Amino acid sequence: MMQARLRARRARLRQRISEAGLAGLLVSHAANRYYLTGFELHDAQCNESSGLLLITAAGEDYLLTDPRYKDAALRLWPEENLFIYTGGAREAIREFLEKTVDTSSGPLGFESKAMCMDDYGFFSETVKLQPADGHVEEMRLIKDPVEIEAMRRSCGLNHAVFSKVPELLIPGTTEAELAWELEKLFREHGASELSFNTIAAVGPNAALPHAVPGEDQVLDNCPVLVDMGCRLDNYCSDQTRTFWAGDKPTDEFKRTLELVQEAQALAIEMIKPGVPMIDAYNTARDYFEKNGVAEYFTHGLGHGVGLETHEAPSISTRSKGEFKSGMVVTVEPGLYYPEWGGVRWEYMVLVTDNGCEVL
Amino acid sequence: MMQARLRARRARLRQRISEAGLAGLLVSHAANRYYLTGFELHDAQCNESSGLLLITAAGEDYLLTDPRYKDAALRLWPEENLFIYTGGAREAIREFLEKTVDTSSGPLGFESKAMCMDDYGFFSETVKLQPADGHVEEMRLIKDPVEIEAMRRSCGLNHAVFSKVPELLIPGTTEAELAWELEKLFREHGASELSFNTIAAVGPNAALPHAVPGEDQVLDNCPVLVDMGCRLDNYCSDQTRTFWAGDKPTDEFKRTLELVQEAQALAIEMIKPGVPMIDAYNTARDYFEKNGVAEYFTHGLGHGVGLETHEAPSISTRSKGEFKSGMVVTVEPGLYYPEWGGVRWEYMVLVTDNGCEVL
Repeated sequence: MMQARLRARRARLRQRISEAGLAGLLVSHAANRYYLTGFELHDAQCNESSGLLLITAAGEDYLLTDPRYKDAALRLWPEENLFIYTGGAREAIREFLEKTVDTSSGPLGFESKAMCMDDYGFFSETVKLQPADGHVEEMRLIKDPVEIEAMRRSCGLNHAVFSKVPELLIPGTTEAELAWELEKLFREHGASELSFNTIAAVGPNAALPHAVPGEDQVLDNCPVLVDMGCRLDNYCSDQTRTFWAGDKPTDEFKRTLELVQEAQALAIEMIKPGVPMIDAYNTARDYFEKNGVAEYFTHGLGHGVGLETHEAPSISTRSKGEFKSGMVVTVEPGLYYPEWGGVRWEYMVLVTDNGCEVL
Repeated sequence: MMQARLRARRARLRQRISEAGLAGLLVSHAANRYYLTGFELHDAQCNESSGLLLITAAGEDYLLTDPRYKDAALRLWPEENLFIYTGGAREAIREFLEKTVDTSSGPLGFESKAMCMDDYGFFSETVKLQPADGHVEEMRLIKDPVEIEAMRRSCGLNHAVFSKVPELLIPGTTEAELAWELEKLFREHGASELSFNTIAAVGPNAALPHAVPGEDQVLDNCPVLVDMGCRLDNYCSDQTRTFWAGDKPTDEFKRTLELVQEAQALAIEMIKPGVPMIDAYNTARDYFEKNGVAEYFTHGLGHGVGLETHEAPSISTRSKGEFKSGMVVTVEPGLYYPEWGGVRWEYMVLVTDNGCEVL
């Protein structure tokens, strides 16, 4: 059944690339490759590909990888459409493309955001290439029911781990210790990995949107921002809560928390198919402006999440599109004050046919 | 002191790029950026840069990043040489390069293996760019004493965790459980992360050089291949051992283990400055050939390790250079038999002035 879903995706992509007048599409972005084949969601390192997928307009698809991955590939891909490169990989891949793709009626599309200039220069010496970014990303924007169920499970574990945070906020615990305890909870309850490095930020560190957990300790009374997520059934979750450790939250913290939560509620309230995404951003921003705190809201409102933690769409001042049913996006307003910390509050939201649902 | 080391590295790089007739070098590869600045060893995702470093031949260096990383950057970089881009990052970066780099006497070098074609196309519309790969990688080939000490500590933890493997080889334990137990040992003893996903491969799975730990269980008597490493003090370790779970190793296993260990010993014996790297590969291969098993040795002999798990040099049939004092490389021959498994044995080796030392 899995294989049928993947074939259907490749058929839809083939339709798109035919309409674009391309002889095919060379897929090099790891998450796109996985989305279309089920093969290897990760590259070994950012500069070390686990393989390429060649979709041809003519109808055949080919998976290209090195011997390390041959067995994994054979579990889900027919051997006759598998090309194993060894030794001089680039030379072998280029030769395979020359032989396999007929560019007489149109160039071979490639993902110019996922191919380094050096490889492009080498391949394009003999293969007619044309940038064709975004085809797979656009398909990935809309999650199918199986994906949505996986994201529910991933987000469900996220909720379960968040429910344990309050009891872990023991004065003296370092940010790094807290982050590790949370990671163990994820890993011991089904997550294959974190979807990104946990942010566990105490006090003023909560003002840094990209704080790295360190040796700072939870105090008797202080804010603690936790931004965390996992990968479960291959899909990412990503949520943020800001806690107050202790029983004497400052008025400033309480007011900031209220403002952030209200901005989030207002933004979520308006999310439904057909609404411009920038409107959701502006709704949160306008609310902060009305309350005189807009200058402390220093980032976008949210981003798509799925096979990658950060994927399309982006919900910010520069958003161009509209919400569509089946999108899953984060809604994460925040206000940051270097003197004492800050508050961010992040939900994952599924756009439904009539509105949206907080996962 | 750290800052002085980093400045010295940048000065050496500046010398190289001046000699190459470049106006500067735009460093986009994450490990290179870290090596020269101490700023952010990781990108947020493979397709999401944490920042760029601009080394100019004229003498000034600039760190370019987004607001999320501003605070982290300011801890180690002067504000006047820090450029924070927001919103339309590419436009802002290109404008900064136009203003800052004088390409009248030579182009700006860039890392063509670490810049996607799309960014290259955009930047090169107005900035004179020229591929200039490998400058920082060549510097990173030779580890300095501080790096060597970090790698000793990283490899030391690797040894300590390996010492725990035999007691974890309890029949019924799955590969995934074993891998997670080992990961916890790394993380709870100082590692910031794994340097790559642990391979814990039982029985025939040991024949797959890229096995993913799954639900297969350790048996009463079976081979178990463990290839693992961590990042400690930012430096990677990477070692492999192949165990026999139980007390009745097969003759085939014993003979294969002996062959692999002997091939490794012969290769290590010859490693010293000035020796062509291909000779080490050929030594192992020749030994396997003499024993009629060369066809089961299906990969290279080893690779450099440092800030990245896989970095230059590569020791294989295609190696061109010689060993140099200060290199740290893996030596990891293996023999693989799909019917029953296989054996790989991997050490990390530091090339010294007169020979080499197994870490």
